[in-house]
Parts: sequence; C-alpha cells; structure tokens
Amino acid sequence: MSPWDRRGTVAGMTADYRARRQALRDTARAAEADVDAVLITNLTNIRYLTGFTGSNAALWVDLADTAEREASTVIATDGRYRTQVGEQVPDLRAHLARAAARGLVEATEPGTRRLGYESHVVTVDEHRSLQAAAEHIELVRLPGLVEKLREVKDEDEIRALHAACAAADAALAQLIDDGGLRPGRTEREVGRELEFLMFAHGAEAVSFETIVAAGPNSAVPHHRPTRAVLRAGDFVKLDFGAVVDGYHSDMTRTYVLGTPAHWQREIYELVQRAQEAGRAALAPDMPAAAVDAAARSLIDDAGYGELFAHGLGHGVGLEIHEAPGIGAGASGSIPGSAVVTVEPGVYLAGRGGVRIEDTLVVRAGGPELLTMTPRELTAI
Amino acid sequence: MSPWDRRGTVAGMTADYRARRQALRDTARAAEADVDAVLITNLTNIRYLTGFTGSNAALWVDLADTAEREASTVIATDGRYRTQVGEQVPDLRAHLARAAARGLVEATEPGTRRLGYESHVVTVDEHRSLQAAAEHIELVRLPGLVEKLREVKDEDEIRALHAACAAADAALAQLIDDGGLRPGRTEREVGRELEFLMFAHGAEAVSFETIVAAGPNSAVPHHRPTRAVLRAGDFVKLDFGAVVDGYHSDMTRTYVLGTPAHWQREIYELVQRAQEAGRAALAPDMPAAAVDAAARSLIDDAGYGELFAHGLGHGVGLEIHEAPGIGAGASGSIPGSAVVTVEPGVYLAGRGGVRIEDTLVVRAGGPELLTMTPRELTAI
Repeated sequence: MSPWDRRGTVAGMTADYRARRQALRDTARAAEADVDAVLITNLTNIRYLTGFTGSNAALWVDLADTAEREASTVIATDGRYRTQVGEQVPDLRAHLARAAARGLVEATEPGTRRLGYESHVVTVDEHRSLQAAAEHIELVRLPGLVEKLREVKDEDEIRALHAACAAADAALAQLIDDGGLRPGRTEREVGRELEFLMFAHGAEAVSFETIVAAGPNSAVPHHRPTRAVLRAGDFVKLDFGAVVDGYHSDMTRTYVLGTPAHWQREIYELVQRAQEAGRAALAPDMPAAAVDAAARSLIDDAGYGELFAHGLGHGVGLEIHEAPGIGAGASGSIPGSAVVTVEPGVYLAGRGGVRIEDTLVVRAGGPELLTMTPRELTAI
Repeated sequence: MSPWDRRGTVAGMTADYRARRQALRDTARAAEADVDAVLITNLTNIRYLTGFTGSNAALWVDLADTAEREASTVIATDGRYRTQVGEQVPDLRAHLARAAARGLVEATEPGTRRLGYESHVVTVDEHRSLQAAAEHIELVRLPGLVEKLREVKDEDEIRALHAACAAADAALAQLIDDGGLRPGRTEREVGRELEFLMFAHGAEAVSFETIVAAGPNSAVPHHRPTRAVLRAGDFVKLDFGAVVDGYHSDMTRTYVLGTPAHWQREIYELVQRAQEAGRAALAPDMPAAAVDAAARSLIDDAGYGELFAHGLGHGVGLEIHEAPGIGAGASGSIPGSAVVTVEPGVYLAGRGGVRIEDTLVVRAGGPELLTMTPRELTAI
C-alpha cells in the first residue's frame, strides 16, 4: 500500500478536486475582482482543492476562460515532497521550490496582471516578499473564498465525517461498558483511555486534546485534563473527537457519577432542552443568529443566560473549527449540507457544568445526526 | 490542584517572565525602530513572555524608560479566559476583548506614536484592521524579535527539555525491552505503543505524529506510519518526541530487525560518523552553516551527498521547530545555551534509509546531550 493510502481519498473514492477548483474559479469571478489567477497558500485549502497533504505548498489557480486553465494551474512544494505530490496530485503540474508561493509568482507567465491572494492568511512579510518577486503584478485581496466553499460538504466528505463520528461514539460506548468512568480515576487517565479507544475504533488522529472535566472543573468551558480525581456525585464532562480521512468529529457528553442531585438534574434538563431546540432550528439558509437564539432563549428564560458565555456551535470538516460560526453575533446563514455542531452549556462556577454537543448535517428534511451517543441524563 | 497546575510553571518554578519582557524591550530598542511599544500576537511568544496558554491573546509591551513600563504592559484575551489569565499572569493588567489585538490598539493611550508589531505573524487583513482601529498610530515592522530571544534557553527551560527527552528515552527503552519492535507488527501499531509509553513516562503530549518507517519506507524522510508490516532484515526508523511543561524533545533512532546486511552497515556507520562530527562541531557562536558542513562533508566524501537532502538540525523548545536552523544555507550562528537537534540521514530509495538524531544543549565546554538512547548499530 502506498504510504499515503488514507490521504487524498475518502472511503476509497478520490474526491472531485477538479470540480472544487472550478467552483473556486466561479466564486473568484463572482467576486468581481477582475483577477487572472488566484494564489492559494492555506494548506488546508490546498488539501481541499488538490488532495495534497504536505507541510509546504502553494497553488496557482488559473482563471482563464479557456480549456487550458487546468493545464496552467500549478501546485508548488519543495523537494522533500517530490514523490508525494506526484502520487497525490497526478492531475496538476508540480513546481519544486523551497519558498513555494514565491517560486510560483517568480515563474509567472508575463500575461498575468492581477493576482488574487488569501489576505486572511498571507502575513505582511510574505506579502512584501511576493510583491518583490513580481513587481509588475497587482496583488488583490480575496479573503475566505475557499473557506466559503468548504462550508457545503459533498457526500464523500459527509461519509468521512460519519466515520469520524462513529469512531468517537464507539470509543465512548466502550469506555463506559468497560467501567472506565468511575470514581478514583484521574481526568488524565480517562482522557488517555478515551483517545486510545478512538484509535482502536479507526481514528487516524484525535480532533483536539480530549477534555475530561470532573466536579467543579466541569464548570470551566475549556478545561484541560489534570490529575484531579473523579469523585462520587461529580458531573464528568467529556468533549472529544476523532479524525478519519482528514475529517473531524466533535461531541460532548456530561454524566453524573451516582445519583444526580436536584441542581444537577435541573441544569442538565435545561441544557438538554436547549440543545434539542437548537438542533430543531437547523435548516438550510437559516440565519445562524436565529439558530443560536432558538437554544439560548430557553437558557435566558431560565435565568442562566450569563452562564452560557460561548457560541452555540461551529462548522466542522478538515478543521475542527471552520465556517459557519453559530453565535448571537453571527451575521450569515447556514447553507444546506453544512456540517455543524450544536453545543449549549450552563456552568455554575465552583460547582459544576453541563454541555451537550452533537455534530449534524443540515438537510432540507431536518438535520441528520452524525453523533449517535444517547443524550439522556445518565447516572454511572 | 489548579486546572493549570502544569502550565506557566517549569519543574515547580515560575519562569522569570518579567526578565524576558525586559529582554524584549532591550532588543526592540537595539533595533533602532524608535517605537513606544511592541504588540505581540504570536501565541507561543505570548506564552514565553507571560506564561499564558489560552488560544486567544495579544500582549502590549510598553517600552517607556520609566519604572511604570510594567504597569502599562497589558495582556488581552476574551471572556472565556477571565479566570485563567488571572491565575497564569497575576503580574500584568488584563484587558478583555474578543478581538484581543484590536482591543489593545483601540484602548491605546493617546501618547503612543509608533507601535512595533510582528510582521511575520500578522496577516494583511489583520494589519488593515489594526490600522483602522488607531489611525494616528504608525505601525512598524519588527519581525522575529521574540523568536531570537527564545534561541537562548535559561536553566528552567533546559530542565523541562531534559524531562521531555528523558520521557522519550524511557519510552523507547521500554518498547524494545517489551519486544514491541518485531517482525509482523504494523508501523501504526508500533507508533501508537511508543506514544502510549511516552504518556506513561510523563509526557503531557507528543511533539508530533510519531514516525515509524520500515523497510523501503525508511528511505522516505517524512514518512507517516501506515499499515505496512515490519519484516526481518528491515531497517526501522523511529522519529518521535515528548512534551513536558510545554517543551518538546526530538530524537530519531534506526534499528535493523535481524542481522544487518553489508549495505545497511555501511550507510549506518557513515551516518553515525557524520552525526558525531556534527555534534562535535557544536560550540557557542559557531556559524550554523559550518556545523552543517562538519557532518555533511563526510556524507559528501562517501558519495552519498545527494541522498542527504535536508538540513542537519533545528532549534527545539516551546515549538518542535524553532530558530536557529542548521543547514547548508543558514546565515546565522548558534548561540550558547541554544538547544538544537543534529540529525543527518542517508536514504536509498526503494531500499531503506538511516537517520540518527539527538537533542543537545550548546555549551562552552562541549555540547550537553539531552537524549541518551545509545546510537550504536543495534540488531533487534
């Protein structure tokens, strides 16, 4: 098997990179920036458009309105990746240069007048270097074009996200079945075991450092696991994810070790209702702020609004956090076939907190759940 | 124990962040850019200067030549980190703003005329946003100042690097003692076990995705583990590291599964001699290119020069790759108390490759080895 057997392909199918590049051309033209080409330097965007997974690359996407535009679309990387770029990107010409973006700009055809670039990614110093490499080219800010395309997942991507969520579901089920969540263990021990189980169930990596937060620590939204010991009566909050074929899952569950106290039941059921309302509000082209409000209003009405101090959710895909954001201040709407999280929480400082989070596909007939672990209040 | 018990402290000692900020002021003044303050936005640099480990921050370092300069040095982060910033950075004023850098610039004292910023980190769009937030301020490019300071490690940092290297050494020793390196296992199985053992020996994270490359795969410098099976007679190359208190170790060892063939012995002993020569050349203020040449000339003389297509080494610390770089084209020199890798390799495509890598402290009396695993050709 090739060393890159699991990259550049999803569930055995090569993604349609040519169609993605064409979509970028259409978007760039719609931006009315009158550019001859677009220079892509964000590595995740390059992976999305070509399948290349190396750590140094730039992509020159020709916008010419002729059949030759794919033939004059070029990927650049350095000599370490000579073999890899040929295997992963057999359909594009490769240019070898240590400074990949600068190498592409230096090798520009004389006809290029205006070049779009990712101004949300390119640093001030890199911009100076590019401009110095080709003084006759006008560099034109075109931020976020590929990120916008990536909001809408195709079925290959959804299949990978499904597999990633299934690996996380299976790992959590086994952790609980094996008695791994019990008083006396440390947060770190539980986190390591959960990560080990995700690998055992097919993850190629973890989406982020697993959050295990017990007792008062569960009231810290972004707690990192410590040597703190799980105790009877504690809330235990687990926020974790698996990566499959480059795609990330994201899920949070909160359990009670023993019989839930009244206050625990109260905030759990509140968060559960808010999470259901947020999920139910997901529909193609819904304003993101309205989805946030559908969940947040329940928590506000219960008097806990100030204790839910983060957004309701975010897109997931090749990155763990990507567009669209779902929060009170979000201005856009959520397209159909976006894959997003819904994750309200209520956190009582010094006592404990609850967050419930799922990953879902936005569909016309109602959202499709990818994370399947039960959400009911569970005493362990 | 506080949730941040292992961050912001090294081996139980708080680093002298105040002294590091003063060193930054001295460097910025020496740059003769005539700035009133420096805005730091790289998160690793902020951690180095303050101890803060959150995922959103900016730091305003006042350069005033008065005793008040620390009182008017401010860290900004958002509301999620209100508690954390107070615990990790008790000695600085905190400003809460979702857009941390912009928030600092908006809150500027009227007296600020010229503000240095990290132009190697700030994107074109961020620069526009900062300039729009304070039109009266002149933004001045000051790239790489903190990275330069970070090249020289203090004894607290070296202690953390020592602990990280010891965790990696212990994990590899146990992997071999337990018979974990044997024909029939896959590269991925070996990689997972090695990572698991690093955690068991005190790592808080792994430095990067562990490289396990068997047989012909060992000839690919940046191979990622696959389901390829280890076979008798194979070279097996392991490149891996542990993180302790935020500091990264980096080590490569190459073994033979069974009796080494003649060609294996030949390239192994060549790389071993080159690695010894590279280590021996390390001394305070040596030109980095000369250290690279000390190792590379042996490989060149043996006729394998084209098969050693990467640099000899790099600095390690809060990041796995940091300054100084050690390569044929490097222009600078290596300061005393830098911590660097020395890692020559020879790679025969389709057959196999050898790399030997250590992490060392550059000292006046000769380099101090932090990675202690034996380097002799070992048949397993």
